[in-house]
Amino acid sequence: MSLDGFVAGPNITLEEPLGKGGENLHDWVLRLASWRETHGLEGGETGPDDDLARETWARIGAHVMGRKMFSGGSGPWANDPNADAWWGDDPPFHAPVFVLTHHEREPVVKEGGTTFYFVTDGIESALEQARAAAGGKDVALSGGASVAQQYLQSRRLDELHIHVAPMLLGGGVSLFGELGTDAPALKLTNVVESPLVTHLSYEVER
Amino acid sequence: MSLDGFVAGPNITLEEPLGKGGENLHDWVLRLASWRETHGLEGGETGPDDDLARETWARIGAHVMGRKMFSGGSGPWANDPNADAWWGDDPPFHAPVFVLTHHEREPVVKEGGTTFYFVTDGIESALEQARAAAGGKDVALSGGASVAQQYLQSRRLDELHIHVAPMLLGGGVSLFGELGTDAPALKLTNVVESPLVTHLSYEVER
Repeated sequence: MSLDGFVAGPNITLEEPLGKGGENLHDWVLRLASWRETHGLEGGETGPDDDLARETWARIGAHVMGRKMFSGGSGPWANDPNADAWWGDDPPFHAPVFVLTHHEREPVVKEGGTTFYFVTDGIESALEQARAAAGGKDVALSGGASVAQQYLQSRRLDELHIHVAPMLLGGGVSLFGELGTDAPALKLTNVVESPLVTHLSYEVER
Repeated sequence: MSLDGFVAGPNITLEEPLGKGGENLHDWVLRLASWRETHGLEGGETGPDDDLARETWARIGAHVMGRKMFSGGSGPWANDPNADAWWGDDPPFHAPVFVLTHHEREPVVKEGGTTFYFVTDGIESALEQARAAAGGKDVALSGGASVAQQYLQSRRLDELHIHVAPMLLGGGVSLFGELGTDAPALKLTNVVESPLVTHLSYEVER
């Protein structure tokens, strides 16, 4: 997120899914060797950022994400101009991905081990399905903000890994929003710094 | 600020000027030897947090703050139940403090080197007066959020020193709010960590 708490900038469109300035949040990750590897590319930087990204990624056995993160759309799938999502034929997840939606849909099998499953019976169900599919590895809640807030409020997250980019987006999608009295307590467990990002890890009180 | 970006919790009152849960933001600082010293107390913890607080404090020659931070009130001073502010006869600033207000008032001289001056002609004037009074040392913008946002938007800050407490307040006073397109660019310059706080320092692009 940006220092002012946004995970996407204002004015989100299909052409600019992270809103105005939002892509810059990810400057730190796009140059990493581990990110490039996951995306089928060679080269890239190694070092503390890369080590952390690689370790985190290696722990993940399944993903949960919201409909907005998957396609940016809403409503029936037939009317979603981005129903095939952002990532083409070989998405970077290489694992089962459970997409929260109000609209039923058959699973979509992609190359490289990524299958998208569509879950219409809520966040608890998505988590259970993802846990069963993760083969003993971690389930990553990969976004977006609304889904993150729902899982936080229902005390279903064990850890937060926040990557603070040194920028102020000035507006957009707030990661935490206003959680209200359901906000769980946190314990700081790790800090890793580099010029482009500060990685803050927390345990979430259940 | 809390991880979700608040510098005070919800439901601010005279009895609870930092709102519900907001006092916990300062848990890390209240135990420090340097904080206790500034407040005329003995003892306290030393270490990286204390070193950083001590170094930061030693650089400050004058403070600027908003009316809300000074007293929590608004409107004519005669009607402000906290017109003498929070800090008693010997405030912890030990330096000139320039308070932004819409209502004129004679300076208030306190013990220990703190004098409160009341500035009614805007943030530029307050900064100029504070700079002249700082004797070559730094001017600290000490809060609150509204004043910080005004100075950020007008490109009058050189540095940000953000102390992120490992907690989610769930609501309250947002430090950065929505700065919009006036949000300046940042450069991360320093990170200091301890279990109770993460100190993030940035240069602000002018």
